[in-house]
Amino acid sequence: MVIMEHNEKHFTGSEQIQDIVIGMSDGLTVPFALTAGLSGAVASNHIVITAGVAEIIAGSIAMGLGGYLAGKTAYDHYYAELKREYLEVEVVPEREKQEIEDILADYGISAETKKAFVDELAQDKDKWVQFMMKFELGLEEPVLNRARNSAMTIAAAYIIGGLVPLTSYFFTKNPEEGLKYSVAVTLVALLAFGFFKNKAIGENPWTGAIRTAFIGAIAAGAAYFIAKLVSGI
Amino acid sequence: MVIMEHNEKHFTGSEQIQDIVIGMSDGLTVPFALTAGLSGAVASNHIVITAGVAEIIAGSIAMGLGGYLAGKTAYDHYYAELKREYLEVEVVPEREKQEIEDILADYGISAETKKAFVDELAQDKDKWVQFMMKFELGLEEPVLNRARNSAMTIAAAYIIGGLVPLTSYFFTKNPEEGLKYSVAVTLVALLAFGFFKNKAIGENPWTGAIRTAFIGAIAAGAAYFIAKLVSGI
Repeated sequence: MVIMEHNEKHFTGSEQIQDIVIGMSDGLTVPFALTAGLSGAVASNHIVITAGVAEIIAGSIAMGLGGYLAGKTAYDHYYAELKREYLEVEVVPEREKQEIEDILADYGISAETKKAFVDELAQDKDKWVQFMMKFELGLEEPVLNRARNSAMTIAAAYIIGGLVPLTSYFFTKNPEEGLKYSVAVTLVALLAFGFFKNKAIGENPWTGAIRTAFIGAIAAGAAYFIAKLVSGI
Repeated sequence: MVIMEHNEKHFTGSEQIQDIVIGMSDGLTVPFALTAGLSGAVASNHIVITAGVAEIIAGSIAMGLGGYLAGKTAYDHYYAELKREYLEVEVVPEREKQEIEDILADYGISAETKKAFVDELAQDKDKWVQFMMKFELGLEEPVLNRARNSAMTIAAAYIIGGLVPLTSYFFTKNPEEGLKYSVAVTLVALLAFGFFKNKAIGENPWTGAIRTAFIGAIAAGAAYFIAKLVSGI
């Protein structure tokens, strides 16, 4: 039976794949759009490449360090909350029990069952706190070193993604020519990336391909026309 | 008592504030680092401004549209899962009951209480499904129009953030001079932004100020030196 086989495979994709997706998604899009935008406004590939490299460095550090600090904040936050919950079940156990009963009341559980449930849960303080963390606060235990690994994966994916649109400007004589190859190469890369990204998370791969390429095309097109406008002022 | 007053104010900050933070965090950092990087490598403010504008357009569209599609995916995902859970409680109710009992078993709940709990929950299919959505899958009901509002907020915050480092190049004669003002203005903006961001989410504001300015400084410094290196090749 299809439902039984699919069961609980609700949302797949490891955290590392998520980080690659986060980094590469922006890495393929923003440096592409920036260099496309500049190539309509400046006369030399050298400037396009310099700006592209500066953008890749800026973007990868901002995203990587941003990812690191977000991960570290989530980690610190979890353990701060954990400490507080341990303190609360120690100091105000009746109020904590009442909070669980309030949650259960929303689902139509009888007074008798709620009482039995809470009393049994409260017999083991660790399990009680784990229950509060997950079901009251919706927090999962973060993995150690996650923040640092996450930062490096996001930054590396951004750099790899960002080099795709840039390479065309190395092998061409002027920005106009570079742009043509860059658009072709990057749109193919965006389609492929969107396809496999959605495949990895169990969504329709063709929708992913179209959406990802669409974002890149819109961003690059808008940057191109507005940079042309600005450079003409 | 402090614990009682603080209770359940665990993580504040509305979703709109989160969107502003997401957009402005990158908007203040990446265009700042890009223009700083370029100003060590090119001779004219005009090029720095053109690149900065192209980056702001590229980044705001990539982040805004990315935010929109992420929101829309979360929305679609929620309703796809909701439909599946309704189907499952209809077609394989005993297995769905067993899943809840398995979750409760992890918290030391007795067979008797689990049985009573599940039977009472199963009396109302809507509540049963809501329970599965929240406690088995960890999914919250997304707000309608959230995706579109989120996209526009992120994009607007990115643009506003990105204009801060850029304005210095309008009022100065060369990139070297522009860079000095841009660094001063943007570091102050990053410190203030980090301060109020952390204040809004209930974390230490000074840590936020230092961290945010640190990311911007690292990104700008790295972009500056590497762009200088590339432009010398």
